[in-house]
Amino acid sequence: MSWYSEHGPDQDIVISTRVRLARNIADFPFPHLLDSEKSNELIDLIEENVNKIVPNFFRTLHFQDLSEIDKLALTERHIVSPQLLQDKSEKALLINDDEDQSIVICDEDHMRIQGLYPGFKPDETFDKTHKLAVALESILNVACDNEFGYLTACPTNVGTGLRISALLHVPGLHRLDQLKYIIDSIRRSGYTVRGYYGEGSTEKGQMVQVSNQITLGQSDENLIEKFNTLLNSFIKKEREARKIWYQQRKIQLEDKIYRSQGILQSASLISYDEAFEHLSNLRLGRALDFDNFPDYPDILTLSYLVGVGSIQKLEGKVLSGTERDAARAAFIKKSLANK
Amino acid sequence: MSWYSEHGPDQDIVISTRVRLARNIADFPFPHLLDSEKSNELIDLIEENVNKIVPNFFRTLHFQDLSEIDKLALTERHIVSPQLLQDKSEKALLINDDEDQSIVICDEDHMRIQGLYPGFKPDETFDKTHKLAVALESILNVACDNEFGYLTACPTNVGTGLRISALLHVPGLHRLDQLKYIIDSIRRSGYTVRGYYGEGSTEKGQMVQVSNQITLGQSDENLIEKFNTLLNSFIKKEREARKIWYQQRKIQLEDKIYRSQGILQSASLISYDEAFEHLSNLRLGRALDFDNFPDYPDILTLSYLVGVGSIQKLEGKVLSGTERDAARAAFIKKSLANK
Repeated sequence: MSWYSEHGPDQDIVISTRVRLARNIADFPFPHLLDSEKSNELIDLIEENVNKIVPNFFRTLHFQDLSEIDKLALTERHIVSPQLLQDKSEKALLINDDEDQSIVICDEDHMRIQGLYPGFKPDETFDKTHKLAVALESILNVACDNEFGYLTACPTNVGTGLRISALLHVPGLHRLDQLKYIIDSIRRSGYTVRGYYGEGSTEKGQMVQVSNQITLGQSDENLIEKFNTLLNSFIKKEREARKIWYQQRKIQLEDKIYRSQGILQSASLISYDEAFEHLSNLRLGRALDFDNFPDYPDILTLSYLVGVGSIQKLEGKVLSGTERDAARAAFIKKSLANK
Repeated sequence: MSWYSEHGPDQDIVISTRVRLARNIADFPFPHLLDSEKSNELIDLIEENVNKIVPNFFRTLHFQDLSEIDKLALTERHIVSPQLLQDKSEKALLINDDEDQSIVICDEDHMRIQGLYPGFKPDETFDKTHKLAVALESILNVACDNEFGYLTACPTNVGTGLRISALLHVPGLHRLDQLKYIIDSIRRSGYTVRGYYGEGSTEKGQMVQVSNQITLGQSDENLIEKFNTLLNSFIKKEREARKIWYQQRKIQLEDKIYRSQGILQSASLISYDEAFEHLSNLRLGRALDFDNFPDYPDILTLSYLVGVGSIQKLEGKVLSGTERDAARAAFIKKSLANK
């Protein structure tokens, strides 16, 4: 079962927690210095070793074999970043059926071992991802310096090679005009706040992604603990903001949410951006315990399935803009009617 | 039963047909020259004589006794014009329970005998209204000149004193950008085209009101016949325009109409203007035979009941803007759920 069809802690605010560990193989140059042949050699080596540890757990996707629709759909489910698709060099993705564990091979680093889980669970996400990394290190010659720690292509990842991030839905702080102050304060503490699709992306559906910036000179445990504290405070603030909003502007907020529900249930054409905004409002309605509202995993699944790439994948063909908008509207209508 | 809860011919396009006959009493100066005492004398005289012809058929409303809400509600049901309410002189309205027959006393003329019926039925509307006028002329000394015909306060009504009008819903011609050409051509034929509330009003919900301009030198029958021909051609053009629109932009049109339905069924706050636009779209959906759409009289009744004055009348109290928007949204939601 896909990770996004499962419940998670603090899911009224946190959509997902991600851990990514950067690891490189000592005997190979960094990916941007590898030619196609050498890249493929490395991909095969890693695939082979991963299969020794967890046989038949991952399937392998070679990016050059994927259609544009498939690639787009992968970014829409947050498995790879849109940036990864821009560069055409040899890359591969090992991914399990639940899509909560994956290894990107030959992107910026030789390996990016990823865990992606619903709600806010930094410890569990780290533990699962770290366990796979440790097992791989036992059979692969991973580049590690006694003083600095893991060596990575980009200096910002040197050290633990650990990037932890969480995607939060923060309409309350946004509405109360407090989001920018909180984001500033988070940034001053050495964390990065980004849009829905991570680096370089803009805000979408009042969602932000928070991640650690510093990886050098700290232990994994220390990093996770600090992230935990920071995010719990952020979550608390968003919950308070929603409470104030609902107390002060109850009917206006209900109007906004019920209209979104009405539009999702009735539109015959809907863009991805518009659908996403309304689905975010449904999330908020669910968080406010509105009657008969779909549950978090259903809303998240729907938001993943109606992306520009995903909806074409679902329909099994290339669609024009209007055809996509029609297919998306029909799929949403049907999905919401089934709840 | 109110006239607007009944079906009428060509109701896919024509909301209502109205006939208004201006008549003045020979022994009294025109209303703008009457003092309060004389006005009341005239009101009593007309009321008394009307009661001889149709006993207990009309009830009498004295405008100075009406609340602002009551007056507003009367304009929203198209019984009197907004202009009539601006001037504070003594005026009265005789109106029957179905609200399809009425006499305005001491507005611009001593009597304006009105008939208002659903759909397009100029002959029937004229006949019913004219019958009452003829009966009144048999017992009241109505000012009539052998050469000019009926004498009226404003020269544009001299002659037959007959004004016939129809309110049309013309989204098709509007959408195809043909409305302005057709309106120009109607105007050149000596007819007036106005907005939803008649003189001086703006367009609302793609509805226009067409009425004759000339009353002098023509017989009633001739006027009605010409109006009939003109309107039938207008109706035909609108039907063709809708057909072309639906053929060329089926899914976009469906999207527009279903979204309006979705919003009406889900909003917690809605302004009169917004509700009116969406109800107009529902009318169009009904005309296109969309499944389970409310019927014309239900839509018309709803559009009448949710006006700024009418919704306060319905709730039985003075409401703030937000309270009205909330009451309107709740009433619409409930009404549409009951269909």
